[in-house]
Amino acid sequence: MAQNKQLVLKKRPVGLPDKDTWELIETNIPEPKEGEFLIKSEYVSLDPAMRGWINAGRSYIAPVEIDDVMRAGGVGKVITSKNPNFKEGDFVYGQTGIQQYLTTDGEGYHKVDPTLAPLPMYLGTLGMPGMTAYFGILEVGELKEGDAVLVSGAAGAVGSVVGQIAKIKNCKVIGIAGGADKCKYLVNELGFDGAIDYKNDNVASKLKEYFPNRIDVYFDNVGGEILDLALSRLAMHGRIVICGAISQYNNKTAIKGPSNYMSLLVNRGTMRGMVVFDYAKDYGKAAQQMGQWMLEGKLKSKEDIYEGIENFHETFLRLFSGEKMGKLVLKVSED
Amino acid sequence: MAQNKQLVLKKRPVGLPDKDTWELIETNIPEPKEGEFLIKSEYVSLDPAMRGWINAGRSYIAPVEIDDVMRAGGVGKVITSKNPNFKEGDFVYGQTGIQQYLTTDGEGYHKVDPTLAPLPMYLGTLGMPGMTAYFGILEVGELKEGDAVLVSGAAGAVGSVVGQIAKIKNCKVIGIAGGADKCKYLVNELGFDGAIDYKNDNVASKLKEYFPNRIDVYFDNVGGEILDLALSRLAMHGRIVICGAISQYNNKTAIKGPSNYMSLLVNRGTMRGMVVFDYAKDYGKAAQQMGQWMLEGKLKSKEDIYEGIENFHETFLRLFSGEKMGKLVLKVSED
Repeated sequence: MAQNKQLVLKKRPVGLPDKDTWELIETNIPEPKEGEFLIKSEYVSLDPAMRGWINAGRSYIAPVEIDDVMRAGGVGKVITSKNPNFKEGDFVYGQTGIQQYLTTDGEGYHKVDPTLAPLPMYLGTLGMPGMTAYFGILEVGELKEGDAVLVSGAAGAVGSVVGQIAKIKNCKVIGIAGGADKCKYLVNELGFDGAIDYKNDNVASKLKEYFPNRIDVYFDNVGGEILDLALSRLAMHGRIVICGAISQYNNKTAIKGPSNYMSLLVNRGTMRGMVVFDYAKDYGKAAQQMGQWMLEGKLKSKEDIYEGIENFHETFLRLFSGEKMGKLVLKVSED
Repeated sequence: MAQNKQLVLKKRPVGLPDKDTWELIETNIPEPKEGEFLIKSEYVSLDPAMRGWINAGRSYIAPVEIDDVMRAGGVGKVITSKNPNFKEGDFVYGQTGIQQYLTTDGEGYHKVDPTLAPLPMYLGTLGMPGMTAYFGILEVGELKEGDAVLVSGAAGAVGSVVGQIAKIKNCKVIGIAGGADKCKYLVNELGFDGAIDYKNDNVASKLKEYFPNRIDVYFDNVGGEILDLALSRLAMHGRIVICGAISQYNNKTAIKGPSNYMSLLVNRGTMRGMVVFDYAKDYGKAAQQMGQWMLEGKLKSKEDIYEGIENFHETFLRLFSGEKMGKLVLKVSED
């Protein structure tokens, strides 16, 4: 009889998670009860936010408990169903967690169409990262045509979409990423106006060069020094979208606060945080617009897919080492 | 012949200014040219922002240059006039600087009426601090009825008005100030719902006690640790108004950035800076409303007046030691 593999949280890491943070266990494949259905999960999404979910304490979402299956978004196929709204063979997106099989009553799940786009894309540009980018830059960042826009984590799942949307809106867009390959990708493939390689460039002087008239919108995925440098180059009435702070997630000491925050006063600036779930009622509208842009060739999507639930840990660490390009996805089941 | 005393900037201080930062010089009383008038300055306003004006470098206003008269708002009397819009005997408010006599073409000056309110009040509740409080809490802070409001520097010229306006708008208001006397004043005289003595109380536990449902609006005059504590207790969609950072103005090292700024993400919060000059076109409307509240006894004003231009330095330092109550004013001319 086939078994289910599940990745469970075993301890709360201090700093960068080590291999003992998780354990891969084998369990029986669950049986759907009345109103439920069984999903075979195919791809799961690996995101920086997951690092926050395994810390104890209050955040925008409850922490994953010890011995619970690690939380993650995923796409999979309905195998058997006792729920009239989902039938065998449907493909669905939801919080599948890092496991191969699961049952659910369908709460929080929606169907996806693998003939319109490859399944992993529903974890990236057509999923939460894409939604985060869309609402983050357009609503939280209050993007206006002609704005000078800076985005960090620019080659990532969120940042790459932020930058492309800003280009669609006729803005000047500069991306910050780690390494020459990613920087070339931003300019040559995605049409950014420029890229800054934070591992090799002097970020402060590049910002000065690229933003002679300063920064209207900074979309921050990284925090730390780069947030401070962006603050010091903020334009009047500039906006900073706080979407993440990946440079700080594995800190063993307190987070580095932005020393230059008084630039908000000098420039009458706004710094605002966001969580994508708040925009759930408008996901459909956004996805339709994003799909349209993809059809028109204005919005490109890139997924970096690794295989094997047993490789979760090493793959997850790529988020923090930067050794990946585009949306990081793990294929957890064999075909 | 009477002489003019002027306080000029002699050097840019590192840390808390010492006595050699300034020099008091005597000059001839200037003669108004065609279109100008001569003012005898009576009271000048001493404000925390002045500390920033004597630093070199870009800010929301150009720095005071070495050997220039120190910038300050003041109220005085028109002595002679060659300007048809201002006549002898008029009382005016403007950027008089720290000096006894000056000439001006009237740009940036407006008349004040000493029969409606004592002159020093035009430097406080009816002046820039009052305007800062009014637009800061109502527009930048987007105050709503019933909000739970925290204000730091609460016994100061801005903070005391912020808190009283929030009470008028039926909010719960807690003030942070230094020392038992100021705290008693906030609660007993100004009607605050509570006060926290940052010099003697455990601010974190007091915030927990006073804000069981967290903080909707934090009006920040101080920065530093208190900003961090307020961030950690921010309510969903909470707003932080960045008006000042007096705890950091005399730093010899980098400003302490708010380590807890990711609370903006968790709580979808907004941190926004302000400079009162942006609201100049609406000062009249605001002053009328504030005057009305004063007549109704809902808004109280307190000025702490010291005498003698030669005592500028010691009086200015009271802003940072906290040894003053209400708006700090210096009387620079004898009657």
